[in-house]
Amino acid sequence: MAEKFVSRRNIQFILDEVFNVQELTQYPYYADHSQETFQMILDTAYKIATNLMFPVLKDLDRESPEWTDGSVKVHSAVKQYLQEMGQGGWIQADKPYDIGGQQIPITLKQMINYVFAAANYSLFAYPSLTAGAANLIYTFGSEEMKNTYLEKMYAGEWQGTMALTEPDVGSSLGDLATQAEETGQGYYLMKGTKIFISAGNHDAVENVIHLMLARIKGAPAGVKGISLFVVPKYRINDKGEYEYNDVFCGGIEHKLGYRGCPICQLNMGENKDCRGFLVGIPNQGLGYMFQMMNEARVGVGLGAAAKATAAYYASLEYAQQRLQGRRLSVKDPNSPMIAIINHPDIKRMLLFQRAIVEGTLSLAMQLSIYEDLAKMGVDHERHELLIDLLVPIMKSYPAEMGILSTSAAIQIHGGYGFCGDFPVEQYYRDIRIDTLHEGTTCIQGQDILGRKVVMKQGMAFTCFQNEINNTINQAEKIRELADMAEILQNALQCLAEVTNSLLGLAAQGKNDEFLADSVLYLELISIIAIAWQWLKQAITAVTALASQPADLDIDFYQGKIYTCKFYFDYALPKIEGLAIRLKSSSKVTVDMPVACFED
Amino acid sequence: MAEKFVSRRNIQFILDEVFNVQELTQYPYYADHSQETFQMILDTAYKIATNLMFPVLKDLDRESPEWTDGSVKVHSAVKQYLQEMGQGGWIQADKPYDIGGQQIPITLKQMINYVFAAANYSLFAYPSLTAGAANLIYTFGSEEMKNTYLEKMYAGEWQGTMALTEPDVGSSLGDLATQAEETGQGYYLMKGTKIFISAGNHDAVENVIHLMLARIKGAPAGVKGISLFVVPKYRINDKGEYEYNDVFCGGIEHKLGYRGCPICQLNMGENKDCRGFLVGIPNQGLGYMFQMMNEARVGVGLGAAAKATAAYYASLEYAQQRLQGRRLSVKDPNSPMIAIINHPDIKRMLLFQRAIVEGTLSLAMQLSIYEDLAKMGVDHERHELLIDLLVPIMKSYPAEMGILSTSAAIQIHGGYGFCGDFPVEQYYRDIRIDTLHEGTTCIQGQDILGRKVVMKQGMAFTCFQNEINNTINQAEKIRELADMAEILQNALQCLAEVTNSLLGLAAQGKNDEFLADSVLYLELISIIAIAWQWLKQAITAVTALASQPADLDIDFYQGKIYTCKFYFDYALPKIEGLAIRLKSSSKVTVDMPVACFED
Repeated sequence: MAEKFVSRRNIQFILDEVFNVQELTQYPYYADHSQETFQMILDTAYKIATNLMFPVLKDLDRESPEWTDGSVKVHSAVKQYLQEMGQGGWIQADKPYDIGGQQIPITLKQMINYVFAAANYSLFAYPSLTAGAANLIYTFGSEEMKNTYLEKMYAGEWQGTMALTEPDVGSSLGDLATQAEETGQGYYLMKGTKIFISAGNHDAVENVIHLMLARIKGAPAGVKGISLFVVPKYRINDKGEYEYNDVFCGGIEHKLGYRGCPICQLNMGENKDCRGFLVGIPNQGLGYMFQMMNEARVGVGLGAAAKATAAYYASLEYAQQRLQGRRLSVKDPNSPMIAIINHPDIKRMLLFQRAIVEGTLSLAMQLSIYEDLAKMGVDHERHELLIDLLVPIMKSYPAEMGILSTSAAIQIHGGYGFCGDFPVEQYYRDIRIDTLHEGTTCIQGQDILGRKVVMKQGMAFTCFQNEINNTINQAEKIRELADMAEILQNALQCLAEVTNSLLGLAAQGKNDEFLADSVLYLELISIIAIAWQWLKQAITAVTALASQPADLDIDFYQGKIYTCKFYFDYALPKIEGLAIRLKSSSKVTVDMPVACFED
Repeated sequence: MAEKFVSRRNIQFILDEVFNVQELTQYPYYADHSQETFQMILDTAYKIATNLMFPVLKDLDRESPEWTDGSVKVHSAVKQYLQEMGQGGWIQADKPYDIGGQQIPITLKQMINYVFAAANYSLFAYPSLTAGAANLIYTFGSEEMKNTYLEKMYAGEWQGTMALTEPDVGSSLGDLATQAEETGQGYYLMKGTKIFISAGNHDAVENVIHLMLARIKGAPAGVKGISLFVVPKYRINDKGEYEYNDVFCGGIEHKLGYRGCPICQLNMGENKDCRGFLVGIPNQGLGYMFQMMNEARVGVGLGAAAKATAAYYASLEYAQQRLQGRRLSVKDPNSPMIAIINHPDIKRMLLFQRAIVEGTLSLAMQLSIYEDLAKMGVDHERHELLIDLLVPIMKSYPAEMGILSTSAAIQIHGGYGFCGDFPVEQYYRDIRIDTLHEGTTCIQGQDILGRKVVMKQGMAFTCFQNEINNTINQAEKIRELADMAEILQNALQCLAEVTNSLLGLAAQGKNDEFLADSVLYLELISIIAIAWQWLKQAITAVTALASQPADLDIDFYQGKIYTCKFYFDYALPKIEGLAIRLKSSSKVTVDMPVACFED
């Protein structure tokens, strides 16, 4: 079993050296913090990850949740971890002091989430889901709701969920059918079925609080008639007692991965006694949910980056230890075998993983810094636009590339990678969900091209180009990086041309053709975004090398420059093929009649 | 659960219309056959696949083999299927009448294997492994060996295996350590450990016959000191009784997929009584094994194509039935939802799968036709060269693309694809082994660039180019295909330039640089090989459409042309990025010191 699931050196590099996260302490909200408190918090998180989470990675996979008559039994580590999260104040760590938060930057919170998710994604999912649900109550709920739910949720005693999907409704949320009937008594009667609800019911908590989308009787059809409700498993009566709220868990799914956390089917109102409490205004539910959806989507991408990270270190360790073969120039069969990390093809697969893992982590932190600055009111509109544009990239690219990255981790292990004695086959299974939940890659593609690139006369897209140009301008002045700066400049030009070509289709009203390949457009813009993050890291590394670092740091910084070069050599050229496709007027996927699939 | 795992219409199209397999009956060896007998044999195979194999697909996955004290209990379907294979003469169907064969063409045999593997890969593996092992005995074994083993193996009563891999030796076979000591009594005493031996021990057969590579005491180091042995689990003594041969199954692996077939650890000679029988001449073992390796490698690629096929049809069926969303132009939320197959992004993922599945199946049949012609002595050298060049492509491209193809099948299912109620997550797991066994993709890359492209002054490569040019010349004359003919011509030119550029490195003695990206070279040449097969299919389809076929056939043929166009639009442009990489003088994976991975 591998020993390392994240690199603390790299975390420090990204936070302190690339993004100077300590600069955030200049803002009053973060003023009590310093680089030292950030470090202490990270140290503690790393200890929890190392001691409580990583050791039970396989146990949670193998001893997966069991459903019996509506109850779901989960691994005992879940309760222990949730208690730890609650006692340490981790769930609301970014929230204000007055509700028990620690006012840490979003950037730091996300880095902690990355560490937890890398150590044990299934385990991390529980408090992460609670945090998302609690955030909705915190932002849009009434004072009474806050008083009723937040304390217990932040304490890790109550689970929170996001209950959107239904048996017939996933991507097409406007069609959801769960009903809410006004009773005039301060609550609605809920009726319907939700599926795929992560942590939707389990025995490690006393109660489960569902943040549920439903349709109030008589509401308009489509997305304009969706409201948000709090639907607890147990409601609290006037005497403060738990009353069963008619939310029945009808079963859990047997899944490819992510097996440590149950995904549940929930039946509301089988006994006509399921009460839901309206959050905010009727028919505004989807809007509320989507204000939190950015967080959830970044969380998915970050989780994928985290799983890919753990797989990368497992395969790196294996490649360093496993002896096989010789250099191509060595013909003597009696000469000793070498560690496989010395073979160029193994290095290629390691560098591919490293480029994805450290590139997407860097993008997540870039996005988080924008969020912190927007939250502090610095250049608010620009930062919000950048966030809007980057979210679909951050959601999808680590997930899509994470499939290939964890697959490369298997490949490095040879036949052993296919076997359960090594952890990589689990990472490969665990990561496969990330292109699916919280909006499929198709949904992200339509979001970025159909919404984000065009919104506000393309302002978000312009801001994105400006940010990259700033990095290019810096790199141009550095001898070692000038070539790559020029390559990225050309790539940005290519992106602009492809975008204009596609917007031309939209202008002609050819909406199907415009969006048909939006997943490929998303890949193109993602490759450029990650190249940008690598150039940023390379600038930091070159600068650091100029100041005579210690020997081990020299290797580290040079490794950063090599990995940047690798990404520019191996990943960036893919945009050539993508651009040909995206600029082509041929649209087979629109033109081909579905009957041509029959035979 | 899906209902369809292969398309019989497509099988007929490929065999009869594209490759005119019945033309093989002009050769005496196949003269007793006709299109009708081929059809009857295929019908019978399809019935076995439908009735015996496909229904137990999930059962074999879930009720996986159990090891106890050296014994391995497998699902009861294994014995039933092996009996059926034995009674029907399927294992040696391509062999001559005099040893109980039916003298069917290799091409037909491979198509049958495809049907079986698509229905249930784990189940198919058992007789397939027996066939490979029996083939070694048939080709290189003594008469006594043939008399001792073949009848029982062909009857499905004895299992055959290929025993190469050891705990420390996978890709680097020259280092294998299993020892054979000459006794002067007609056998060698074997000592050592083999791992990952598929079907290496199980209770559905009476005996297991291992075709095992080992090193005779005192033999030269490296590949020049490897010999081939028959090592049975039970040897037959003079009285015809079974005697335990000291081959102990020390355990089986818990695997990601391919769970219906055990992969075993075998310990030989723990009690100093494991007898091995030398096949052929000492120290020629690797050569014998590699003459059979082509068959095994094509088998892996074909198996991957088969699994991807079953996943494709499962996702096609789902996309046709599942309602969600509306056309982009429809804004009324009260309008009915449409089947998701109508969404361009779903069509894109279906077409991607179809292009891979039908393109790689076509390549497998192309290769098999060459094998049949070589076997008949027609243009023997040229066909052997073409086979040599195509084998690494056929081994690796369906395996590598099959990972993405089965992943697309999951993606089409949305969250359901991640769950065990649908079959696609199993195909995704089952196919992951195919880039690993019988030579990893890295080994295939080194084989094609370092050996096949350069051998005999590039003659195999020239033959390959000529074959493609023949197809291009046909397509040029067809109005609908002329554009694609030109694109493939340019792609072939690109391949020639890349190849020359790489050979330039080899000429300078830069062997590491020459082979560093051979996996990407393999991808480049594979994309072109599949484009060639698609152009061939499109030629056949256009020709058929000209002769006024039935309505359903019109859809089918047009579907072929659309899918060809899809491959040229979406897959072929990838060679642009690959060519940039392969022609670049930058070689990060050679230059980067391994210390730069430390942090």
